[in-house]
Amino acid sequence: MSTPSPYLVPSRLPKRTYYEHETICSILDEALFCTISYAVDNRPFSIPTAFVRYEDKIYIHGSVGSHFIREIEKGIPVCISVMLTDALVVAKSAFSHSVNYRSVVIFSKAEKIEDAGTKRAAFEWLTNKIVPDSWDYLRPMTDSEVRKTTALAFAFDEASAKMRSGMPKDEAEDLELPIWSGLIPLRTERGIPVADETSINIPLPEHLR
Amino acid sequence: MSTPSPYLVPSRLPKRTYYEHETICSILDEALFCTISYAVDNRPFSIPTAFVRYEDKIYIHGSVGSHFIREIEKGIPVCISVMLTDALVVAKSAFSHSVNYRSVVIFSKAEKIEDAGTKRAAFEWLTNKIVPDSWDYLRPMTDSEVRKTTALAFAFDEASAKMRSGMPKDEAEDLELPIWSGLIPLRTERGIPVADETSINIPLPEHLR
Repeated sequence: MSTPSPYLVPSRLPKRTYYEHETICSILDEALFCTISYAVDNRPFSIPTAFVRYEDKIYIHGSVGSHFIREIEKGIPVCISVMLTDALVVAKSAFSHSVNYRSVVIFSKAEKIEDAGTKRAAFEWLTNKIVPDSWDYLRPMTDSEVRKTTALAFAFDEASAKMRSGMPKDEAEDLELPIWSGLIPLRTERGIPVADETSINIPLPEHLR
Repeated sequence: MSTPSPYLVPSRLPKRTYYEHETICSILDEALFCTISYAVDNRPFSIPTAFVRYEDKIYIHGSVGSHFIREIEKGIPVCISVMLTDALVVAKSAFSHSVNYRSVVIFSKAEKIEDAGTKRAAFEWLTNKIVPDSWDYLRPMTDSEVRKTTALAFAFDEASAKMRSGMPKDEAEDLELPIWSGLIPLRTERGIPVADETSINIPLPEHLR
């Protein structure tokens, strides 16, 4: 990746900042949701939404009637923010507390996907990210459903990742204090699937086990 | 709460929108992190950060040197977004897939906390939210640490919650299809604390058990 835009150079803790494509992709591929921000008359709006990365773009979808979608499909500047939280970092002082996280920020503009085949592909990528290997099992998407849904793509040439990992970094003079310090891991897990009333007699498909 | 601002009336699914203070507080109190957005020359920026609600305001903190903090402490408009994800909603068609979530959006402006006592209280509320009951156990915060940290408060008079819960809502004509539908619960859990090398011989305090 080329020299980062000045917007991507942090004022704090530059050593926690990464610009490598692979690092950014690994975070984007693990996170299911992002927050997309845009501004109208310098007033910011932000919306959490599901997304998928495919090759060098990320894709989101929404109803053609959504105000949010209609604003950003114009191609105005957006900021896309993603965060995975790995642990609470518990130090001996409140001041040295931290969080182990992996985050990405992207500055981009929407490209509206007009081609029905590409739209359908984007819905397939998104569905298979949220529920792996599920697309081919589902009732096929109709042309009408494709028309009722907008798909937007965002290049992420202008992106950076920020991460913290490891143990607390207490002040030298605090290290001998008899105060416990360490990590509290945070994990987001998928639980056991719960069938609705139409599915009580339908075997749970392989991809959900 | 009074009539919501037009910015808070959604274009889609108004039945999923709530303005009650208690509903909003319950989501704010469960979430550890929010995403704060602001705009400069109509260019949006967003940053994930930890926060705490106390009475009718939410509080964040950051280094006095942080570019983000220095921008928003001016009192420019911000949008604060919080999302808790409860389940993936797996329908018989991709189109009817959804997410069970509880989200809050707040439009506000920062008030910089100048009073050292209130700042210290805000750090206590924040620390005790992230790691319950931990503040009194930690090495006390020094005056210098209080000075090096900015605390910002945000009223949330202009806020709404949006939620979805329950099973998939498949199209009537899909209900008989032999395709499994239901929920995949998502849970964020705290794991077993991991001591750092300074704490191997220090008993895990009661509040971390």
